[in-house]
Amino acid sequence: MYGDEDCQIHSVSTLSQAGAGQISFLTNSKYRKHLMGSTAEAVILTQADSSDCPINALVVNNPHAAYAKIATLLNPPPTAILGIAPTAYVDPTAQVDETASIGHHCVIEAGVKIGKGVRIGPGCVVRYNTVIEDNSELVANVTINYGCRLGARVLLHPGVVIGADGFGQANDGGIWIKVPQLGSVVIEDDVEIGANSTVDRGAIDDTVIGKGVKLDNLIQVAHNVHIGEHSVIAACTAIAGSTHIGKGCVIGGCVGIVGHLEITDNVMITGMSMVTKSITEPGSYSSGLPAEATATWHKSIARFRLLEKYAQRLKAVEVQLQEKNDK
Amino acid sequence: MYGDEDCQIHSVSTLSQAGAGQISFLTNSKYRKHLMGSTAEAVILTQADSSDCPINALVVNNPHAAYAKIATLLNPPPTAILGIAPTAYVDPTAQVDETASIGHHCVIEAGVKIGKGVRIGPGCVVRYNTVIEDNSELVANVTINYGCRLGARVLLHPGVVIGADGFGQANDGGIWIKVPQLGSVVIEDDVEIGANSTVDRGAIDDTVIGKGVKLDNLIQVAHNVHIGEHSVIAACTAIAGSTHIGKGCVIGGCVGIVGHLEITDNVMITGMSMVTKSITEPGSYSSGLPAEATATWHKSIARFRLLEKYAQRLKAVEVQLQEKNDK
Amino acid sequence: MYGDEDCQIHSVSTLSQAGAGQISFLTNSKYRKHLMGSTAEAVILTQADSSDCPINALVVNNPHAAYAKIATLLNPPPTAILGIAPTAYVDPTAQVDETASIGHHCVIEAGVKIGKGVRIGPGCVVRYNTVIEDNSELVANVTINYGCRLGARVLLHPGVVIGADGFGQANDGGIWIKVPQLGSVVIEDDVEIGANSTVDRGAIDDTVIGKGVKLDNLIQVAHNVHIGEHSVIAACTAIAGSTHIGKGCVIGGCVGIVGHLEITDNVMITGMSMVTKSITEPGSYSSGLPAEATATWHKSIARFRLLEKYAQRLKAVEVQLQEKNDK
Repeated sequence: MYGDEDCQIHSVSTLSQAGAGQISFLTNSKYRKHLMGSTAEAVILTQADSSDCPINALVVNNPHAAYAKIATLLNPPPTAILGIAPTAYVDPTAQVDETASIGHHCVIEAGVKIGKGVRIGPGCVVRYNTVIEDNSELVANVTINYGCRLGARVLLHPGVVIGADGFGQANDGGIWIKVPQLGSVVIEDDVEIGANSTVDRGAIDDTVIGKGVKLDNLIQVAHNVHIGEHSVIAACTAIAGSTHIGKGCVIGGCVGIVGHLEITDNVMITGMSMVTKSITEPGSYSSGLPAEATATWHKSIARFRLLEKYAQRLKAVEVQLQEKNDK
Repeated sequence: MYGDEDCQIHSVSTLSQAGAGQISFLTNSKYRKHLMGSTAEAVILTQADSSDCPINALVVNNPHAAYAKIATLLNPPPTAILGIAPTAYVDPTAQVDETASIGHHCVIEAGVKIGKGVRIGPGCVVRYNTVIEDNSELVANVTINYGCRLGARVLLHPGVVIGADGFGQANDGGIWIKVPQLGSVVIEDDVEIGANSTVDRGAIDDTVIGKGVKLDNLIQVAHNVHIGEHSVIAACTAIAGSTHIGKGCVIGGCVGIVGHLEITDNVMITGMSMVTKSITEPGSYSSGLPAEATATWHKSIARFRLLEKYAQRLKAVEVQLQEKNDK
Repeated sequence: MYGDEDCQIHSVSTLSQAGAGQISFLTNSKYRKHLMGSTAEAVILTQADSSDCPINALVVNNPHAAYAKIATLLNPPPTAILGIAPTAYVDPTAQVDETASIGHHCVIEAGVKIGKGVRIGPGCVVRYNTVIEDNSELVANVTINYGCRLGARVLLHPGVVIGADGFGQANDGGIWIKVPQLGSVVIEDDVEIGANSTVDRGAIDDTVIGKGVKLDNLIQVAHNVHIGEHSVIAACTAIAGSTHIGKGCVIGGCVGIVGHLEITDNVMITGMSMVTKSITEPGSYSSGLPAEATATWHKSIARFRLLEKYAQRLKAVEVQLQEKNDK
């Protein structure tokens, strides 16, 4: 801590907008210009960025993580109303801890178990025999199908669907017949899943989302996928059936990963890549093409299509040169 | 059938985990190693895979389809509670067959017709004048907008939205004004649609999903699209307006298909392809680029961008050689 | 107007299907063949297309916009039932204008303000302290999280989620910890958002959707994104955090736009492009690759991978030629 150790902080803000009593943070040196003119009460930053800091400074190794913790302390969730809203339907055989909160118009089916401090927001459906452990939260309009298991401190945003049938179709003489999806979904502790994402139930075994995994919005996780602990995936990515993703992976948005692959630990996949083979070495992988002016792009595609002809012409040139050399 | 024709089967499992009384299946010879050590009571496989089979074997031409049928027999759906849940709202003018089941907190609006054995799970909304034929199922939190027609045995997973307005916008001097979407959606018999997929209503005519079509999760079907019978589409694919897709097509995940195209019957499109022109010949089509190490990929992109220069240099070399030859 | 100025129109239809009393429109000269045989009462078209028109013609500069306005006049929305449905839950502290309509099983939380003529369809959840201005509509099963602000005449289709937490995760020694998302979402007047799209709340500042913006289905708008007035975006596109998009942009489907970019006004981005850098000049940008026959495509990819070797061989040929020239 540099500066006034007794300064009082009541809220967080951005470096450029923070005023008296507010704390902000600096994680990227390219925003130091905002630091120089900041009227924040204090800033969280690294030692490297602390020289010439004009305001009170909390010097840490990881300003983003420190900010997250401070912002969490300063912004506790609103107190949930304990108990079951009068408009909710809770089956008599469901076990709901008395410290849990069940919102308006929720449906909690038979055999469901809901742990301590669980908060289920309005309009959620939890189908039969699903288990939700302590302090998890379903924000609103979340659907958990039957027989799923959610760990502690799981956070599911609106529109999430857990445990819908996996996409199992067997072709029977040109007609697709449904393959029953008999597995379930296991979501381990501290998982967060973004709005309108879908995690399908397994065909026979379970789909598994490992401890601490964070999924963004509109992500598709197919049947029997396993995602290793503390992996993080950005929006609109799709993972096809039975693929196993390792621990600590960082996967960008709009990525497609085909089925039955093994992705090892600590793999990074950049946005809009298509992963078609197992990845056995940690590191970064890509196949997204950056946009150019459309006219330039059309020329590039045309030349791409001519590659075979270019290769033939190059070969012809080489042969001619060789013949000249051989003379 | 090879082995003990009187063996008793109570459930299905995977080849590697099945035990007494359980049946499994083998569709891919590369998993024969699991067959060799399997403790399953029986296995479904082809004649080609049946030699040396160490356990009871049900020999069929199509093990996957046979498995689907057996697993369905062994796993009947739980008996639905007949009738209308007390917390559901059903408009007095709606016609709900007495063998149908309407779940908690459903909303069934005026003029809706719901056939025999239909199961509507909790939280579903069926807007006015929609018709749902016999034995269809809406799992939970499904939304069907007004005036749509669903055939028999249609299965819609949670979060599906049928009949939202198509994306019709007319530019009026820089301002986009809404084009009313006056058509509807027709979903024929035996269609299955995955979680959070959307099928928009037509602009004037209808959007049509043909008999036996199977759609995975998070798929977008725009206004006036037609999908032919028994076509199957994997997750996160988007089909733009007025495109017609033939029968028996197999479309991978994350595919984009532009509007106003005609895709003939029996076309396969592999994952992450972009279809920009009509396809008149059956066969397989692609444009997805497989991921590589990011460093390699960046070099590839750089060289891709140099293609025009390479082409010019190649031409220059050819000209020089020609000049030498002409001397 | 050419023809009978007193002709009576009761509804719209397509050129090929319209009959007596119906009006249609022609925006694309390639459909003139449908005009020639049309039995419509009248058609909306441009001067350029009006010669030889066999039926009554309403000649305008912009037939699509004129059609939109006429179709809107001919198809007024059904009269909403005023007031609050008996099955809805409305917190006593919420302010709902008496001309608003709150559908069955809606949940309107504390401190919400709902303006004149607002229509909230069945199953919607509006969380605490959100404000919805006059004549906006939430069709059904829409979720608006706490503290969001919607302007007038906003139209949200089923499954839309507004104001879910942005995807803020700080890595703390290999573990991702949640960064509280303290901003909100501001949706300005005349915005339309398609089914199952998601707009996340800002991290500290707000996410802003400008006046007149039209978003299709299954679109992801991340935290702190700004979308400028009268921009339009097709389905399944994803915009990463803090990117600002200008006014009057036209963005295709399945596009991915990375975070922290500035896209200027009047930019067009074609379908399936990946935008990785800020765009400072108006114009059209692309990077989607059109599909080819899979066999051809595989050859193209193989040659793409050989580009470095081709470049080396080309260089070698040039050097050899230079040596010959130098002799």
